[in-house]
Amino acid sequence: MTYCVALALAGGLVMLSDTRTNAGVDRIATFGKLFVTERPGDRVIAMMTSGNLAVTQSVMALLEEGVELDGEVHTLTTVENLFRAARLVGTALRQVHKSDGPALEEHGIGFDASIVLGGQIGTERPRLFQIYAAGNFIEATADTPFLQLGEHKYGKPILDRVARRELSVEEGVKLALISMDSTLRSNLGVGMPLDLLVYRTGALTVGMQRRIDEHDTVFRAIHNGWSGALRVAFQDLPTPDWTIG
Amino acid sequence: MTYCVALALAGGLVMLSDTRTNAGVDRIATFGKLFVTERPGDRVIAMMTSGNLAVTQSVMALLEEGVELDGEVHTLTTVENLFRAARLVGTALRQVHKSDGPALEEHGIGFDASIVLGGQIGTERPRLFQIYAAGNFIEATADTPFLQLGEHKYGKPILDRVARRELSVEEGVKLALISMDSTLRSNLGVGMPLDLLVYRTGALTVGMQRRIDEHDTVFRAIHNGWSGALRVAFQDLPTPDWTIG
Repeated sequence: MTYCVALALAGGLVMLSDTRTNAGVDRIATFGKLFVTERPGDRVIAMMTSGNLAVTQSVMALLEEGVELDGEVHTLTTVENLFRAARLVGTALRQVHKSDGPALEEHGIGFDASIVLGGQIGTERPRLFQIYAAGNFIEATADTPFLQLGEHKYGKPILDRVARRELSVEEGVKLALISMDSTLRSNLGVGMPLDLLVYRTGALTVGMQRRIDEHDTVFRAIHNGWSGALRVAFQDLPTPDWTIG
Repeated sequence: MTYCVALALAGGLVMLSDTRTNAGVDRIATFGKLFVTERPGDRVIAMMTSGNLAVTQSVMALLEEGVELDGEVHTLTTVENLFRAARLVGTALRQVHKSDGPALEEHGIGFDASIVLGGQIGTERPRLFQIYAAGNFIEATADTPFLQLGEHKYGKPILDRVARRELSVEEGVKLALISMDSTLRSNLGVGMPLDLLVYRTGALTVGMQRRIDEHDTVFRAIHNGWSGALRVAFQDLPTPDWTIG
């Protein structure tokens, strides 16, 4: 299982992923799901992946090698804008589907992969996309400034209530960590450590990239603080005054 | 879709269900999912159902008619304890599976049904069971004093953090309503009105049964109050003091 959450804020992008990969409950490993392409002053492109690890690793390898888009071979360092970066990743997914899809199907394994891609190239505004297994994609908007991959339900109620484009990136980091914490608590298939990336609008260089383990004091403060805050909020909410026989 | 949540507290039972039934997004109807058998002074047995409506309605009809258990025909008014009530419901599910399962399978429709059953008979303590489609069942315990049916993930984080056997039934009602509210907000397949049942330990009569619609002032206070409380809790939680470039 996987949980990744990304926020597209006015001030920048926040991307947070877990690192657990499992094939059944007895075969668990740590694999980074966050991949960054950075050319300071020109571009930052970050990706988080979910789904079949063999598929997403093949996509990453193809992107490294170069993928043909509109008659030219491109990598993430050469595409001219984020929309084309998303198309490039979609094209890579389709190539992997073409080569591996039939064999996976013979073994009854679905072609399951989804990728969140965010960043900024040159003077274009930062953008955030979610690319599906079929290679098609959507973009986060002001109405819904967040995208999620994998086990998304446990961590969604707080996003629904708090996520707004106007949050600062620091508040965005706090929100992403709370959403992740709710998921970690409820699904053992999502696990520490976490990979966090923060990108500030216009910086064209990574603002922060950090691996967060269970001893991380900031994460522990969020974890304990949020549990306590929820209990207090519950206590403080007026109890229904219905007469119960 | 369905969401039902039930709490087994020291002071009694709280059971809350939505009422939405849908076959696709364009065929939506309201069907009660809460069924109560009451013989004041002797027993209260309440059930909430999820899954294929044809299956659960057949189960209810069989239970009304009487189901053979250990060589005798019983209904929920004649079984001698809650464990046998759960077995009776499981037996009814197996009968429906025997009669309808093969035809459903021919049409590629899974035999999907799950039932939460709670109540008290005579001097036995109140008990709360979840009965699966296969007719087997589990019981809520002090470690996990809640059971959920259907779309359970959105409403689980708050239960994980707050649900304890020592909550009063009034607090249990508040908790169930918060858990439902998070689910209603995130899944359109779960819908108002709600059916609430509260049973106090030892009463042997229903404490409260109430249909809650969207104009209900208590529910609106929970809905608005909880959204506000979460936003305040988020604001109050210290923002990570990492230096972000």
